[in-house]
Amino acid sequence: MSGEKNLKVALLGCGTVGAQVARILLEDANELASRSGAGLQLIGIAVRNLETKRDVDLPIQLFTTDALGLIEQADVVIELLGGLDPAGQYIAAALSKGASVITGNKALIALKGAELNEVAAGSGAQLRYEAAVAGAIPILRPIADSLAGDHITKVMGIVNGTTNFILDAMDTTGAAFDDVLAEAQALGYAEADPTADVGGHDAAAKAAILASLAFHTTVSSEQVSTQGITEVTAEDVAAAAEAGYVIKLLAIAEQGEAGISVRVYPALIRRGHPLATVHGAFNAVFVEAENAGDLMFYGAGAGGNATASAVMGDVVAVARQIAAGAPLPNGSVHQSPRMLDFDAITTRYWIGLSVKDQSGVLAAIATVFGEHGVSIQSMSQQGDADSGAQLRILTHQGTESALASTVEALKALDAVHSVLSVMRVEGN
Amino acid sequence: MSGEKNLKVALLGCGTVGAQVARILLEDANELASRSGAGLQLIGIAVRNLETKRDVDLPIQLFTTDALGLIEQADVVIELLGGLDPAGQYIAAALSKGASVITGNKALIALKGAELNEVAAGSGAQLRYEAAVAGAIPILRPIADSLAGDHITKVMGIVNGTTNFILDAMDTTGAAFDDVLAEAQALGYAEADPTADVGGHDAAAKAAILASLAFHTTVSSEQVSTQGITEVTAEDVAAAAEAGYVIKLLAIAEQGEAGISVRVYPALIRRGHPLATVHGAFNAVFVEAENAGDLMFYGAGAGGNATASAVMGDVVAVARQIAAGAPLPNGSVHQSPRMLDFDAITTRYWIGLSVKDQSGVLAAIATVFGEHGVSIQSMSQQGDADSGAQLRILTHQGTESALASTVEALKALDAVHSVLSVMRVEGN
Repeated sequence: MSGEKNLKVALLGCGTVGAQVARILLEDANELASRSGAGLQLIGIAVRNLETKRDVDLPIQLFTTDALGLIEQADVVIELLGGLDPAGQYIAAALSKGASVITGNKALIALKGAELNEVAAGSGAQLRYEAAVAGAIPILRPIADSLAGDHITKVMGIVNGTTNFILDAMDTTGAAFDDVLAEAQALGYAEADPTADVGGHDAAAKAAILASLAFHTTVSSEQVSTQGITEVTAEDVAAAAEAGYVIKLLAIAEQGEAGISVRVYPALIRRGHPLATVHGAFNAVFVEAENAGDLMFYGAGAGGNATASAVMGDVVAVARQIAAGAPLPNGSVHQSPRMLDFDAITTRYWIGLSVKDQSGVLAAIATVFGEHGVSIQSMSQQGDADSGAQLRILTHQGTESALASTVEALKALDAVHSVLSVMRVEGN
Repeated sequence: MSGEKNLKVALLGCGTVGAQVARILLEDANELASRSGAGLQLIGIAVRNLETKRDVDLPIQLFTTDALGLIEQADVVIELLGGLDPAGQYIAAALSKGASVITGNKALIALKGAELNEVAAGSGAQLRYEAAVAGAIPILRPIADSLAGDHITKVMGIVNGTTNFILDAMDTTGAAFDDVLAEAQALGYAEADPTADVGGHDAAAKAAILASLAFHTTVSSEQVSTQGITEVTAEDVAAAAEAGYVIKLLAIAEQGEAGISVRVYPALIRRGHPLATVHGAFNAVFVEAENAGDLMFYGAGAGGNATASAVMGDVVAVARQIAAGAPLPNGSVHQSPRMLDFDAITTRYWIGLSVKDQSGVLAAIATVFGEHGVSIQSMSQQGDADSGAQLRILTHQGTESALASTVEALKALDAVHSVLSVMRVEGN
């Protein structure tokens, strides 16, 4: 079956992932042709600088700086440059002329996915981006296809390896955020400028993509309420551990009667929850669906080889469609989402308070919760002779607005020195 | 986009899963049409007995006993009768006339999948069976499609909920196999005749399907070396726990230089392995791929709603292809597998021995291992005044033939009363 058709493949970018994609395309050409029903010929690799040293030895004649010229000749374009610009223009150029595109560019897809999907639909080209979320883990296609006959109600993902590495190390060693971040940077798990990771922005882009596919709509990364992990302290982690919880940065997409909520924040997960067993830089996506129940997808979230695997899965899928002469099945109607205000989401709160160690304090605090209609699930106190007592309070379910105003009222209490931390609790 | 095309859907069987599929087709008709790009009209439900009480209230006029008559009018046939006969004839009849088929019939697919795939290819119809393995968990499509650009080296699945429920309960409570089985039967987790589950045959069918898709070949359930869990004792479970392991029934498909091995047996998994965290009747499939690394897919392995979710995912996929006027992309070349003899597989052994409590015993035993070229990783002894001592020996990697002949030689040793158990160890 191989050799019937030959598809010209252009690769844009030759970094950690791109170099592995090029290697696989060259090394496994026969096998890929047999699996795709079409030959996949790597016709060129567009890079910014021809002199840069690559991770893999690749034929020098493949390299070019003329990305648009390369795209012009291609049937399939693999974009692994990252960033919004010029990646976005290149993808649009490829799709408009009918070339299918595979990309791992989460920032771009989370911001411009709907627009690019329309360009693809206009020319009959395909746009695929499995590598954009959770690296090697097949998650987008299962959500979009395998669960297409079900109703997904919630997606909770550990989708950023850097922050999971940091939080896991804090949990294991008891170290402070700054120390673990420095170690992660030394080990190459965190970048010199870690803002995109620890600020939750990378996870927010992935949350937007997950929400769009899970709920058959278009959510942009700008619609994601985002909080990073920079304020998570060693004390939070220790107190959570004592209560039987672990803190994870979660990308959450939730759909209820009232609308869709997409958010990123550090949250407590009980130790017995499948997401709690995700260690180091691994990723996992937990999916709750009406009929399927609870599902989890687990694997490596980054790394050249792992991400290249996801890219190549998309390449074979695209090639199979082209080889079969098949237009892309596209029955989904993408409606604008009815977004829920962050204030209206329902979660549980875990509140750390520094309070005066005197009688009547607990009663005053309990009264504040009662006045705001928030009920307390558990309360634990740690005494401290010098600075008073520390309280950790776990609430039952409440709306964000009720919980947040409870915290405001607690701050104003005479008996409360300060609010040490406020975190949400997720998972059953 | 909905309403452009209308597909006539025939349902064969209305048991636990079938009733839920019918409910979803009727309840979610509009949404399914919008997601598929085609209307999905349930034209009838073929059952053996019209009088049987169903789990869901369904319009009585849908029911018929004339399966072949129903198939004749259908564009899409959902087969949920189970069993080889007449399900196989019905599926063949549907595929030959060009109707696409969705089935959850693992026994049939594991035995006749290749044949039925050929019938489908001949008429351009589609044959899908996501529900056949691991219930709600999207696993077949990720393996066949998402990982199509990678090389899968090993698949290890907990794919039978009944046996996982039993082994998990034995691990948690320390109870004996027979007692837990009786409890599982009382709770509805095990059938009155549990042979297919506890004998490993259900898992073997799923192993064959996983191997076929993972390695782009055709493995039949008859080619699967199968051992059930009936001989796993409370002592085995306790000794494994003490050594930091848990016993799970694994469906294993492995591909190495020398060939493909597909096997089912109870094996020790260390507690830190992701598969060890799979409790109760849950399923999980662990996949090792050259580029993607380690992946795990986790979820409910059975139940009407969960399995119906997998069926409906396939229904929407089939409908999308038909609505798009797209032939099924089918680039995979299915070669006959080069099967590895069971004797040639490489694993680690965990051997329980009852031995004489006297000097020189350990030396005699160690000599036997040395003579067979098998090296010992660890050995632990539990004394017992009456019956001598119990030894648990964990080996390093060895071939099945070397390990098995070591055990034979141990049996012949004067110092060995009996071999209490032999189990393999899987996972890193």
